[in-house]
Amino acid sequence: MEPLRAILFDIDDTLFSTTTFATKARRNAVRAMLRAGLKMEEEAVYSELQEVIREFSSNYSQHFDKLLMRLPLAAQVGTNPALIVASGVAAYHDTKFRDLLPFADALPFLKAVRSVGLITGVVTHGLTAKQAEKIVRLGLLPYLNPNAIFISDQLGIAKPNAKLYQAALRAIGVAPGEAMHVGDSLSHDIAPPKSLGMRTAWIYRTAREGQDLAIKPSHRVQDFKELAQVLRKEYDLDLPQFDASVAPGQE
Amino acid sequence: MEPLRAILFDIDDTLFSTTTFATKARRNAVRAMLRAGLKMEEEAVYSELQEVIREFSSNYSQHFDKLLMRLPLAAQVGTNPALIVASGVAAYHDTKFRDLLPFADALPFLKAVRSVGLITGVVTHGLTAKQAEKIVRLGLLPYLNPNAIFISDQLGIAKPNAKLYQAALRAIGVAPGEAMHVGDSLSHDIAPPKSLGMRTAWIYRTAREGQDLAIKPSHRVQDFKELAQVLRKEYDLDLPQFDASVAPGQE
Repeated sequence: MEPLRAILFDIDDTLFSTTTFATKARRNAVRAMLRAGLKMEEEAVYSELQEVIREFSSNYSQHFDKLLMRLPLAAQVGTNPALIVASGVAAYHDTKFRDLLPFADALPFLKAVRSVGLITGVVTHGLTAKQAEKIVRLGLLPYLNPNAIFISDQLGIAKPNAKLYQAALRAIGVAPGEAMHVGDSLSHDIAPPKSLGMRTAWIYRTAREGQDLAIKPSHRVQDFKELAQVLRKEYDLDLPQFDASVAPGQE
Repeated sequence: MEPLRAILFDIDDTLFSTTTFATKARRNAVRAMLRAGLKMEEEAVYSELQEVIREFSSNYSQHFDKLLMRLPLAAQVGTNPALIVASGVAAYHDTKFRDLLPFADALPFLKAVRSVGLITGVVTHGLTAKQAEKIVRLGLLPYLNPNAIFISDQLGIAKPNAKLYQAALRAIGVAPGEAMHVGDSLSHDIAPPKSLGMRTAWIYRTAREGQDLAIKPSHRVQDFKELAQVLRKEYDLDLPQFDASVAPGQE
């Protein structure tokens, strides 16, 4: 087997829990709207917001405006709608400021992988500004090679098109067999790089239901502790032990 | 003299220091861009950013993208521009989260004014979402009558058009002589309400140079301590003493 030279990661639900964060941010937003004077039950507003996001996609930028349009006028009497919306938006962003955190084992793992000389990068699907903000806020920047950050929107190629992974490999100058991609979606993160001959690791702790289990990754791991074991045993990498309960920089 | 029933405030440079906040947020943004890998002198980047804001207005939403377009490519070699922009944007927003604070005497003054039964509101010039966010983040919401918040963009009337003040008075059902407007700009906050017969207070601690001093407000005050004295002496209002160094809610 060729030695491993690079390891690339999906971001959402691979390096942090998208669902946990989004739920918290949306709950906080709804509560702030109620505190600002909206007169409704929290659950009713929250479920209407979920509907808006499903209908307009999570990348739409006016969720809270749309939400207010759909709520009964009686619930808004005596308020200024702009203030209700602004309260929701501010609470959402404040959650991002405080609670957008990587999985406890993600940064320690990245640090360990870098310490043995591997190129570390991300191949992520989404809008450039949104994915770049996640990379910054998750604190990934110091642990990634700056030339190994690939955002689908920035390259004009979307997952699951394998060309995205091909472009990434070309940019970092690494052959498919020398690179591993790690992600939570079998169809988007495993099948395309596998088709190029890349090594793949499926991290299943947040994997959604309904995936095509006929797609076989090189490795199935629960978390980064387990992936570290795989790298030590099967790739002869001398990864240091790491404490997944302490994030680098806080040691 | 008619008794005072309502007091309306401009926001920017009246309830908080726009300049102090903007300078801090932009400095933090530039520093974050340098930490993310931009290879330039801080002062050169900061002054280019100032130029961008002057040319595209402070309400433009893509300052950092434009900034990067204008910086030499040599300063960006080996970086991903989206990450540089995202680092600047995140640092700017984080400053908003932490440092968007009213003048120390603003909330205590609002609280005192409300305790004697006056209607308190704002008449502010700018984009709806931006001004609403300031009202929320400055913590003004609990001290304002919800039906007394007027944002020029939301009403379709911009300062210095006196109709904006007229619409505000009509909405709260108060005669011009029973209302006072407080602001830092003689041309935008004093002349128009004065033309309607409103009382006016010019708060000059952050007043810009080059104002038309021929415009005479009812009162010239340094800060809200002084305005409280005016309200006690000239309007017979029994305003409680307040400690301007302690914000309400922190007592």
